[in-house]
Amino acid sequence: MSVMEMSHRSPEFEAINNAAEQNLRKLLAIPEDYAVVFVQGGGSLQFSMVPMNLALPGKPVDVLHTGAWTAKAISELKKETLHNIAASTEADKFIRVPRNDEIKHSPEASYTYYCTNNTIEGTQFHSMPTSAAPLVADMSSDIASRALDISKFGLIFAGAQKNLGPSGVTLVIVHKDLAERADKNLPTVLQYRTFIKEKSLYNTPPTFAVYILGLVTEWIAAEGGLAGMQKRNEAKAKLLYDTIDGSNGYYRCPVEKSSRSLMNVVFRVAGGDEAIEKEFAKGAAAANLVGTPGHRSVGGMRISLYNAVGQDSVDALVSYMRDFQRTKG
Amino acid sequence: MSVMEMSHRSPEFEAINNAAEQNLRKLLAIPEDYAVVFVQGGGSLQFSMVPMNLALPGKPVDVLHTGAWTAKAISELKKETLHNIAASTEADKFIRVPRNDEIKHSPEASYTYYCTNNTIEGTQFHSMPTSAAPLVADMSSDIASRALDISKFGLIFAGAQKNLGPSGVTLVIVHKDLAERADKNLPTVLQYRTFIKEKSLYNTPPTFAVYILGLVTEWIAAEGGLAGMQKRNEAKAKLLYDTIDGSNGYYRCPVEKSSRSLMNVVFRVAGGDEAIEKEFAKGAAAANLVGTPGHRSVGGMRISLYNAVGQDSVDALVSYMRDFQRTKG
Repeated sequence: MSVMEMSHRSPEFEAINNAAEQNLRKLLAIPEDYAVVFVQGGGSLQFSMVPMNLALPGKPVDVLHTGAWTAKAISELKKETLHNIAASTEADKFIRVPRNDEIKHSPEASYTYYCTNNTIEGTQFHSMPTSAAPLVADMSSDIASRALDISKFGLIFAGAQKNLGPSGVTLVIVHKDLAERADKNLPTVLQYRTFIKEKSLYNTPPTFAVYILGLVTEWIAAEGGLAGMQKRNEAKAKLLYDTIDGSNGYYRCPVEKSSRSLMNVVFRVAGGDEAIEKEFAKGAAAANLVGTPGHRSVGGMRISLYNAVGQDSVDALVSYMRDFQRTKG
Repeated sequence: MSVMEMSHRSPEFEAINNAAEQNLRKLLAIPEDYAVVFVQGGGSLQFSMVPMNLALPGKPVDVLHTGAWTAKAISELKKETLHNIAASTEADKFIRVPRNDEIKHSPEASYTYYCTNNTIEGTQFHSMPTSAAPLVADMSSDIASRALDISKFGLIFAGAQKNLGPSGVTLVIVHKDLAERADKNLPTVLQYRTFIKEKSLYNTPPTFAVYILGLVTEWIAAEGGLAGMQKRNEAKAKLLYDTIDGSNGYYRCPVEKSSRSLMNVVFRVAGGDEAIEKEFAKGAAAANLVGTPGHRSVGGMRISLYNAVGQDSVDALVSYMRDFQRTKG
């Protein structure tokens, strides 16, 4: 019987579900006072579920606004509660994340919300933002990519589809006390406490996705855990950024060096010439380097270097980039 | 590249997503004025999402209460809106579904809600309940198992995991006008109109589950569509019910004949002797007939005959049942 045919109430699936949780606890060194649950609906549902569960009456949510994903989160926040843009790099076109000295916290925030890695803008926080209130992070695009101190957070959520497994399952790590803030009159499946109490088995979970997530955690452990991932990811990103920075301006990354993402490297080709960028993408695809165009909202190129991308892929890419520059540059 | 690695914004995945929708439209003969969308969260999220989107201010939801699943739906309804138990068979311990002459509709119901098949109680509606208000059906456990006139419904939802594919994707078929009832201030991913407008691609969908669902629709079509499924399912259920009814009371199905489910056949063994029922389940499992115990809330045995269960499995089961009765009866 395959995992897709098993009852989620069977001891076999319970073992799969428990193993996935325990592997994550080990890999991410998650303290005992945090719950680890698997929910559905992706980051987009978390944009609503977090304020539904964690916002305190009359107290704003502090937000660090860094791009398209926090903009979406803010749209949903507005429907649920008060919010305060504690920092924003919009005036700089999001080419960097805010420095701690720029953050203006509310005196009584429910929590501080930010996105650790911005896939579209190619930025990433490389140090923790300060916050007296619990810190809530959208870590969808860089969870498990580097070492992490969970105890600094109130809640972390992450759609699995970048670094943890297939789409359709979302990891939530939440301090158990915080999960108790929620009104018990919220829909049952929109309360974190339901998932905590029922060990993510209140209703039928996305069983296959949880199974694959478990296998991915085993792979990460075999590759040296988060330290191993970080080393791989730093090496991949360094090679690509060095190639860009060493191209005499033919390739140009608009992101400030201190905010550059190890997961999503954005750059322009030939001063942002769209015809040449199109040609770059076409030639790359012909060389089996697919998906190089940037997000439609910003243009240019974007290379995603999630955990599963091997060094060999980056080697092939930079070789293609050098050839392309030699021919067209 | 596997479907799990593809971007959900790629033309390749869009084709998979469209094919799944188009196949369902053909198989279920879904009229053009209905939307077909894929959401996450299972039936349990629909218990809240339906009233959030479809309840009208000050107007109750009429419910036909037929067991554990409608009880859960009612619990969530209470949080969102007014409701009226238009009919209930609780006094009969849910061994049948209500007759049309028992239903007491509210004069101005937002909609009428029912569950077409009750997995735990082993009952199923074999005719449509009357309703002047739009009819909303939880069809999680018998979707695509028999012929269906979609135009009689306002909304149908169904977790995929019984008859359509893996868990993690939920089919919603909704009349487009009804989807416009929702307050635009609801969370974006909890509005049906978001899924309709974005063709289920507003955020990352459970891509693998949608892919498999598409393959299942191809299989159903190859097996003769809904008419083919109905014929298979009627033959399987008839053999099992005939075996129960022909056992001189050794096996006994508590469900009234007119309400018996073709999907979930519940019965007791030896007058409900729990020790013998345990032995029945153990022997069945040893013969590779797994999962025969009934739901913990009702006890006894339960045999699920979803679309994917072949006639050969039912043949093996009834052969085991006859042997068991001969030996222990």
